[in-house]
Amino acid sequence: MAEATLGQIAARFGLVLQGDPDVRVTAVATLRDATPGTVTFLANPRYRRYLAETQASAVVVDEAGARDCSVAALVSKNPYAAYARVAAWLHPEPGAAPGVHPSAVVDPTARIAASAHVGPQVVIEAGVEVGERAVIGPGSVLGAGACIGADTRLAARVTLYRRVRVGQRCILHAGAVLGADGFGIAQDVDGWVKVPQLGTVVVGDDVEIGANTTVDRGAIEDTVIGDDVKLDNQIQVAHNVRIGAHTAIAGCVGISGSTTIGSRCMIGGGVGIAGHLEIVDNVAVLGMSLVSRSLTKPGIYSASVPAIEAGDWRRVVARLRHLDDMFDRVRALEGHFKESDAENS
Amino acid sequence: MAEATLGQIAARFGLVLQGDPDVRVTAVATLRDATPGTVTFLANPRYRRYLAETQASAVVVDEAGARDCSVAALVSKNPYAAYARVAAWLHPEPGAAPGVHPSAVVDPTARIAASAHVGPQVVIEAGVEVGERAVIGPGSVLGAGACIGADTRLAARVTLYRRVRVGQRCILHAGAVLGADGFGIAQDVDGWVKVPQLGTVVVGDDVEIGANTTVDRGAIEDTVIGDDVKLDNQIQVAHNVRIGAHTAIAGCVGISGSTTIGSRCMIGGGVGIAGHLEIVDNVAVLGMSLVSRSLTKPGIYSASVPAIEAGDWRRVVARLRHLDDMFDRVRALEGHFKESDAENS
Amino acid sequence: MAEATLGQIAARFGLVLQGDPDVRVTAVATLRDATPGTVTFLANPRYRRYLAETQASAVVVDEAGARDCSVAALVSKNPYAAYARVAAWLHPEPGAAPGVHPSAVVDPTARIAASAHVGPQVVIEAGVEVGERAVIGPGSVLGAGACIGADTRLAARVTLYRRVRVGQRCILHAGAVLGADGFGIAQDVDGWVKVPQLGTVVVGDDVEIGANTTVDRGAIEDTVIGDDVKLDNQIQVAHNVRIGAHTAIAGCVGISGSTTIGSRCMIGGGVGIAGHLEIVDNVAVLGMSLVSRSLTKPGIYSASVPAIEAGDWRRVVARLRHLDDMFDRVRALEGHFKESDAENS
Repeated sequence: MAEATLGQIAARFGLVLQGDPDVRVTAVATLRDATPGTVTFLANPRYRRYLAETQASAVVVDEAGARDCSVAALVSKNPYAAYARVAAWLHPEPGAAPGVHPSAVVDPTARIAASAHVGPQVVIEAGVEVGERAVIGPGSVLGAGACIGADTRLAARVTLYRRVRVGQRCILHAGAVLGADGFGIAQDVDGWVKVPQLGTVVVGDDVEIGANTTVDRGAIEDTVIGDDVKLDNQIQVAHNVRIGAHTAIAGCVGISGSTTIGSRCMIGGGVGIAGHLEIVDNVAVLGMSLVSRSLTKPGIYSASVPAIEAGDWRRVVARLRHLDDMFDRVRALEGHFKESDAENS
Repeated sequence: MAEATLGQIAARFGLVLQGDPDVRVTAVATLRDATPGTVTFLANPRYRRYLAETQASAVVVDEAGARDCSVAALVSKNPYAAYARVAAWLHPEPGAAPGVHPSAVVDPTARIAASAHVGPQVVIEAGVEVGERAVIGPGSVLGAGACIGADTRLAARVTLYRRVRVGQRCILHAGAVLGADGFGIAQDVDGWVKVPQLGTVVVGDDVEIGANTTVDRGAIEDTVIGDDVKLDNQIQVAHNVRIGAHTAIAGCVGISGSTTIGSRCMIGGGVGIAGHLEIVDNVAVLGMSLVSRSLTKPGIYSASVPAIEAGDWRRVVARLRHLDDMFDRVRALEGHFKESDAENS
Repeated sequence: MAEATLGQIAARFGLVLQGDPDVRVTAVATLRDATPGTVTFLANPRYRRYLAETQASAVVVDEAGARDCSVAALVSKNPYAAYARVAAWLHPEPGAAPGVHPSAVVDPTARIAASAHVGPQVVIEAGVEVGERAVIGPGSVLGAGACIGADTRLAARVTLYRRVRVGQRCILHAGAVLGADGFGIAQDVDGWVKVPQLGTVVVGDDVEIGANTTVDRGAIEDTVIGDDVKLDNQIQVAHNVRIGAHTAIAGCVGISGSTTIGSRCMIGGGVGIAGHLEIVDNVAVLGMSLVSRSLTKPGIYSASVPAIEAGDWRRVVARLRHLDDMFDRVRALEGHFKESDAENS
């Protein structure tokens, strides 16, 4: 934990300070539970009501919010991003000492940068490359020929199959698996024939991949995760998927094989995306929806249905089954009307 | 495997015995496939038809069931819970010898109770505390400052990030990850800025967490799992979620950030819960539903739609798109009627 | 990577060659990006447009496709399965040398075939059996009494709990967990009582299980995965589920306890299946559907709703709530009609 004055923070991050530049802060806090000596932020309007009573020493806030702020304000057009940078500065990640832990099993042909950290119980197979200042957390496994860029961090128990390539400044969380075989099976008369999965996974720079998320290797060509893509936990990315730069995908999403997702998309939690689709840039999909056709225009898409009281919902479902019939009945009524109008006229 | 007479079982667990107290049983069995020397149970009415023909030596059953029971009955108001206790007694968990396996890598500052078991290939970082009789299964990783209460058992390959705290008598299954970074990202003009995840995860007593389930650390404050919460496999719990005591959540559920779930809730498999919601105590949500608004009253909620024959369903979906239009057409028809009624009168 | 002539390939796999038998190929490629010296295939009609321009030396294709093929054709009634076999021959799996890595911790009572490979950081507990030529990947954990058939391969970090049995020629991907406790809990007045999970998991021959997929052990009897079953990543199979031979299940599916799925079923991604159901052979379920009743007839089932523009969808959802009311209104209109018809006649 570092310490800084509000003046230093404003200068370093280009914020407009409204308040005393010599006040010191040592930590971040939530608006509601902040104490003096902390800096907090207001980004979600639903927490605005806590602004008047916060005990923080300063709030990172937009211009409108600054006017209602009873304590010092660090004013930004984008207070959430500004807060993120301030927080990272006040709370630096614990470092990892360079070197290879004696319990790690490292193939002699692997090239590990001297500044990299290889933790206990790690396995590094032949031909692996680990870049400068990279961190390979405990129990991780890097298959033959895998490649890790500089400043990339693998938390505990990450698995990279052979030849998987990860760029620079990435973060891979515990239990993530990159490069398992895609689900390629061909049906034959007496059962399934496995289709060899010969491609690999290529991950760009500045990518974050959540805990227990899986990204399968390509069947022939590679599965590709673009720069600055952010994947939450427990996501399944099938073989030959391509995800464009800056796209963010929330937890529990499943993306089927050979689908391409554009840049700057936002996919809500629990969404399912069918295979062989094209989704253009700047698409948002609301949580728990199914995407089963290509989306060719930017926009927000949904098929999500909010839960209601179960008895009420049961009646809806019972009716749903007869929706087709209902449309026919309405058409019949409309026909009667035209007839009776004709008769009456 | 232990051995007991029906009399001993009845006495130990407060059950009313209908039958010979000297009959011995050594194992549990299902109603349908039981053999003499076993004890079985009837809790789910759909298996009642097997009661007459069971070959078990005894059945744990409620009063009504006991009347139809052709063999000895151990009568309980709650036969399933009574069965669970009997089964645990007849089939005790295999123990784990105290001590630290030589292949484990344990930081010298960690405090491991002498009665605890630390399995092979485990990694325990600085400042970790492991309580009395706790079991740390093979390949598990406990990050710096993590804390495990007495009698808690981690199966193989569990990961606890730094400072995660787990209470007493918990069970964490293989592949579970507690304390990975929450999905905190702030959008800026040239991409995403990572929001540091500075809280941790706090797990109460008597909690069970399923295989490959993930619970993220809080952004600023902690993610909190209450006492006696039961989480099945492959659940995703996002940062700053709070789950109240005795709540049970089935597999594949995703819970988004900052949502609070009350006590004694039951969440069905595959449910998705949006972020920043409040769900009160005693709510049940049926499987595969989406909760996208706060639920302020106890009750059962649903948005689940059972699959039907695909051709029939395709017609429903085609109609769904025109549901809005259909309501307008019905309103128009009603309008016509009022007009024609008016004309006719 | 092997090398073969088209004549050799045709002879080995029983394909009809249309073209020069002496042309050599060394690798597979996609239809679109193939270069000379490679063999490709056409199975999905949507890629047919690339057939005329492919640079491959040969295409595995059906008879109709062969007529449009500008290069050599290897003709098969089932080109995808034929391609799979050709690809496996040209690109053999990297082998694993027999022997136990010195960092592995192997109980002296375990029986490991001399031809098997046990990788680094593996843990093998008492009484485990590992068959001929089996491969136990790095960091895997085999609990006491687990049994692995001949030629079965475990990728990195696979966990088998005690007594789990896996057949021959299976592939288990990284992070898979077989045999964790089923979600058995009995509600009692003061909280949950754990129901001991005393069965195990039995996996047939030729089964593939995806990364981070979980299969729970049975409560009393076993959870059973039939021969040639194919499970994609991140699937949850609850206790006492039975899956019939040749059934294929896509990613992110959840199957609740005691459900039986027949043979040769195909379950789409993200499907949820409720507990205690029977699904007959030859059922297909489309992605993201819920199965909440037994399916007693072969066929295709669905409840999946494709996402549309969110504003349009919001209007549909608003109307859904009033569907029951709407049916009543239509019935009322129909009643009026009959009345007015009666009056008019």
